[in-house]
Amino acid sequence: MASKPEKTISRRDFLNQVGKVGGAIAVYGAMDSLGLLGSSMFASAAEFHAPKKSDLVMANKTGKKVIIIGAGIAGLASAYELGKAGYDCVLLEARDRVGGRNWTVRNGTEETEIGGVKQVARFDKGQYMNAGPARIPQHHVTIDYCRELGVELEVFTNVNDAAYYYHENAGPLSGKKIRKREIKADTRGYVAELLSKAPPSALDQSLSSEDIEKLMAFLTRDGSLTNGKYTGTSYRGYVENDLPGAGLKPGTVGTPYPFSQILQSGMMNNFSSEYSFDQQMLVFQPVGGMDAIPKALAAKLPGKITFGVEVQEIRQTTDGVRIVYKNGKGKGPVKEVTGDYCICTIPLSVLKNIPADFTPDMKTAINKINYAQTGKIGFQFKNRFWETEDRIIGGMTTTNMDINQIWYPSYGYLSQKGVVIGYYNFGQDAVKYGDMSLKQREAAALAQGTKIHPQYTKEMEHSFSVAWHKINYNEGGWASYSASDRQNYYPILNQPQGRIYLAGEHLSYMTGWMSGAFESARVAVSEIHERTMKDSNKPAKVS
Amino acid sequence: MASKPEKTISRRDFLNQVGKVGGAIAVYGAMDSLGLLGSSMFASAAEFHAPKKSDLVMANKTGKKVIIIGAGIAGLASAYELGKAGYDCVLLEARDRVGGRNWTVRNGTEETEIGGVKQVARFDKGQYMNAGPARIPQHHVTIDYCRELGVELEVFTNVNDAAYYYHENAGPLSGKKIRKREIKADTRGYVAELLSKAPPSALDQSLSSEDIEKLMAFLTRDGSLTNGKYTGTSYRGYVENDLPGAGLKPGTVGTPYPFSQILQSGMMNNFSSEYSFDQQMLVFQPVGGMDAIPKALAAKLPGKITFGVEVQEIRQTTDGVRIVYKNGKGKGPVKEVTGDYCICTIPLSVLKNIPADFTPDMKTAINKINYAQTGKIGFQFKNRFWETEDRIIGGMTTTNMDINQIWYPSYGYLSQKGVVIGYYNFGQDAVKYGDMSLKQREAAALAQGTKIHPQYTKEMEHSFSVAWHKINYNEGGWASYSASDRQNYYPILNQPQGRIYLAGEHLSYMTGWMSGAFESARVAVSEIHERTMKDSNKPAKVS
Repeated sequence: MASKPEKTISRRDFLNQVGKVGGAIAVYGAMDSLGLLGSSMFASAAEFHAPKKSDLVMANKTGKKVIIIGAGIAGLASAYELGKAGYDCVLLEARDRVGGRNWTVRNGTEETEIGGVKQVARFDKGQYMNAGPARIPQHHVTIDYCRELGVELEVFTNVNDAAYYYHENAGPLSGKKIRKREIKADTRGYVAELLSKAPPSALDQSLSSEDIEKLMAFLTRDGSLTNGKYTGTSYRGYVENDLPGAGLKPGTVGTPYPFSQILQSGMMNNFSSEYSFDQQMLVFQPVGGMDAIPKALAAKLPGKITFGVEVQEIRQTTDGVRIVYKNGKGKGPVKEVTGDYCICTIPLSVLKNIPADFTPDMKTAINKINYAQTGKIGFQFKNRFWETEDRIIGGMTTTNMDINQIWYPSYGYLSQKGVVIGYYNFGQDAVKYGDMSLKQREAAALAQGTKIHPQYTKEMEHSFSVAWHKINYNEGGWASYSASDRQNYYPILNQPQGRIYLAGEHLSYMTGWMSGAFESARVAVSEIHERTMKDSNKPAKVS
Repeated sequence: MASKPEKTISRRDFLNQVGKVGGAIAVYGAMDSLGLLGSSMFASAAEFHAPKKSDLVMANKTGKKVIIIGAGIAGLASAYELGKAGYDCVLLEARDRVGGRNWTVRNGTEETEIGGVKQVARFDKGQYMNAGPARIPQHHVTIDYCRELGVELEVFTNVNDAAYYYHENAGPLSGKKIRKREIKADTRGYVAELLSKAPPSALDQSLSSEDIEKLMAFLTRDGSLTNGKYTGTSYRGYVENDLPGAGLKPGTVGTPYPFSQILQSGMMNNFSSEYSFDQQMLVFQPVGGMDAIPKALAAKLPGKITFGVEVQEIRQTTDGVRIVYKNGKGKGPVKEVTGDYCICTIPLSVLKNIPADFTPDMKTAINKINYAQTGKIGFQFKNRFWETEDRIIGGMTTTNMDINQIWYPSYGYLSQKGVVIGYYNFGQDAVKYGDMSLKQREAAALAQGTKIHPQYTKEMEHSFSVAWHKINYNEGGWASYSASDRQNYYPILNQPQGRIYLAGEHLSYMTGWMSGAFESARVAVSEIHERTMKDSNKPAKVS
C-alpha cells in the first residue's frame, strides 16, 4: 500500500503557526530546532535572543513599561535589549553619569567618599585610569556588545614577562626586583630537571615507554635542559648590560637563581594567576577608557535615563511595580514612578538598606552576601621611566607588599607621561589604604613603589585613589560568594519578587566582571519578555 | 705640613682638554667615567653614542662623505646617525621604496619575483600585511628608534591561549583543533602530578625539606591538583556551550585529554617558542604597518636617497671608495660615485654576486653564509569569522602542517574584514610553496587552513604571497649562521675592507630582527666616526 503523501508546509508558514499558538518564545525554539539560528561555540553569545518587535507583533502583544534601577552595565543593557522590542524603559540613576563601577577617571572627575573625603582628578588631557573594570577576556559577552556598539578595542597588557616580581620577607631573593621571565624560566627548568631525574613508570597516567620518551624530550626542551641539568637559558634573558648585539657581541645568558631561593621567595606562586580562564592572554580594553561601553549604550537610550535619583522604596502593586525616589541625589521631594516590571541593579550592599516588598527569604539573602573590599590608586608620572629605563612597556609588576601590584599603562606607549596603577589591592590591604587620608594613601603607595622604581617620588605629579567599599551607591567592589552562599542564597536572589527582577554582576557566576552584569541583564530581559509573551494581552501601563 | 691645594678644574674645561688631545671618542669615555651619560639597564641603548657635530668641531675635524648601499633599516639608520653629526651621506637603493625586508603590503603593492611571477596586492584600504618583520620585543633597540622617530606602537598579539593547536599524524588528537589553553593547562597539570608523586630528595638542587614542601604546594597550585591528582581545571576553559553565566549557570569545566594523547600529539613541544627571549610577551608593532619605521627614518633624510640604483661594483681607491652603479634598476647607463667610506648593507646572498675589492677571505665568508628560505601569504577575508565564531581575537594558531602557523590580525579588532597570515613557513615548506604558482600557493594554504576554519574558501577575497628567497635584492629571509659559520666567517665579515663596512642583520647576533640591522648600523657608524676623529684632518672628498 502506498504511503499517504505527507502534507508539506513551508518553514515560514510553520513558524507563523507556531507563533500563533505559543508566541515568540516557541518560535525561537522551533527556529532553533530547524537550525535556523546559526550556531556559536559559545553559549553566552548564542543562547540569548534579544526581544524583537516582531515577536510582540506576531503574538499580538504590546511592550510593557519596565522601571530599571541603576544605569550601570546591567541597567543599561536591560534597557538597550528591551528597547529593541519597543518596551518602554525608564532608567533611574543615582549618579550624574552612567556606568556605575565602570568608571574612567579623567581630569575633573570628582568623588566624595562615604566619610566625606573629596577629591578631584587632575590628570592631563588624554591620561586616565579605569577605576573599576579594566579588562575584557575574549570569551566574555562584553566583546559582543563592543562589536555591536562600535566600541574600539586594544590589548590590555595583562602579561608582560619583562615586568618584575618583588617580594619581601621571603628568603634570599627578598627586596630584589627580578624580571618575571627569569623566575619563570628557572622554575620551568628546575621542575623539568627534577621530573626527568625521576621519570614516571609506565603505569602512571597510562603512559607507554614511547610516551615517556616523548615526555623526557618535552622536559628537555621546555626546561632548556643540558645533559638533564638546568643551568640557565636565554629564555630567562641576558645579563642586562650584555645582550646579544651586532659585531662581536653574542650576549651573556644570566645565571639562574638557586631553586631553593625561588621556592623560598614564593614568586612562582604568582604564575597561575596568569593562567586563569579570565586572565590568560589575550584580554582587551576599549580605546580611550572603559566607559566607552556605558557611553555607547547610553547613546542608544536618548531621554530614557533620569540622573541624580535616589531610590527610597521598591514596591509591588497588584499588577505592577511602584518605585519611590527623590531627585537631587536624595535632596529633592519624594516622587514615584510605576510600571509593569522592575529590574533592580542596585548592588546588594546598598539594596539591603532600601525598603522593598521582598520576602523574608529574599531580604535574608540580600543581607548575607559579602562585598569585596578593594582599592586602586592612579599615579600620573611626568615621564615613563618604566619604559625608558626599565624597558617595561605595559604589563604588571607583582609584589607581596600591601600595594599588591603595579600596572603600567596599556595605552600611549613611548609617549611622555602616563598613569600607572600604584596599588590594586583587596581585603585587609584595601581597608587599610581606604582608611587613610588621600595624602597618606599616596605617600604609602609611593613608599612601596619606590622600592621598585626609585624614580617614583620625583616623577609623580597627581594621584587619584578609589576605595570601592567607601564609594556611595556601590559600597564594595563586587559580590563575594562563599560556596554556601551560592547554595543557600544565590538561587533565592535569582527568583523574581513578583514583577521585580534583580540584575548585576552579583546575579551571575562571573562576579566582578562586566560580562556578569551583561549576562544577568539578558536573563532578566528574557524572563520579562517571556512573561509578556505569555501574559493576557493588555496595553502597557502609564504612570 | 699642610698639603698643597689641588688645582681645581671644571668638568667643562676638563672635557675640552680631553677633546683636544683624544677627540670625541675620548670625550665619551671621560663623560662616561664622570657619570655624565646617565645609565640604562640595557647596553644596546646605552653603549652607543650617536656622532654629534660638536664631536667634530671640538676635535677640529670635518664630516666625511659616506656612500651607503641599501635603504633598508641598516642603511637608513646609518645615514640617520651619521647625519646627526653632519656627515655627507649618499644612499643608493635598488628599489623604488625604502625599508628593504621591512615591507608592508597594501592595495597596489607590486612585486615580480625572480622567475617572473608578478602580483599586485588588492587589499582594501586600511588592510595590510607585514611581509617581513612583524614584531618588536621590548628589549630591542628598535623600540628606541620608534620613540625617537615618533612611531606609534601597539601590541603584536604573539600569544593567545584562545587560539588553536592543530596537528596531523600525531596520535588520537590528530586532526582536532584544540584551544591552546587546554593543552597548556593539561600538560602543566600532569607534569605537576607526576613530579608531586616522586618528590625530589633533599639532595636534589640542595632543597631543604621546607623547600620541598613549598615545591609541593606550588605544584598543587600550578597544576590545579586535587588530592595530588590532575583531573581538570578551569584554566583549560569550560565546555564551549556551557560557560559560566548569569542565573543558575556555573559552567562546566571540560575533561582533560589523557596525557598519553597529548604526548603523542607533540602539541606541548610548541610551548617553548612562546618563552624565547624575543618572542615572549609583550611584543609590539607600529600602528598602521611596520614600514612606518623606514618611512620615519627616510623623512629625516630628504634628498639623500637615490632610488632604482643597482650597484655593479664596489671598489676601494687609495683613500676612499668608488661605487659603480646603474640607474633604472640596472637598465640605465653606468655611473659611479666616490666617497670616503662605504657602508654596504646588501644581503650576503646578493652581495656575493657583485664584483668588489674584497680579500679572498672576505669573499669566502660572504659565499659561505646561508640565507633562510621563508614565505608568507596574506589572505584578506570578507568577515572576521575567527573573531565572531571562534572568539579568537588576535594571536596565532599553530599547526604541524606545511603552512606552519596562521596569524590573526593584531589590528582592527571587531571590524568587518581582516588580513590573516595563512602561512609563515621556513626551509623545505617555504621552498615548496615558493615553487608553486600564485594560484597554487593560495589553493594549498586555503586547503590546509580550511581544516581549521571551514569558512576559509567562502570568505577569502584576495591573497598576496611572498617567497623571500625569490625576492630580488634579498634572495632570502635572513642570514642563517651555523655555529661553525659564527666561528670561522662571522669575525671576518665584521672586519672592514679598507674603508668599506658591512652592515645589516647579518652583521649581528640578532639575525632576522630589525634590531640586528639597527645595532650593526651603530657599530659601523661608530667605527667610521672613530676613524674620522683620529684621521689626519682633511676636507671631505667631493665626487
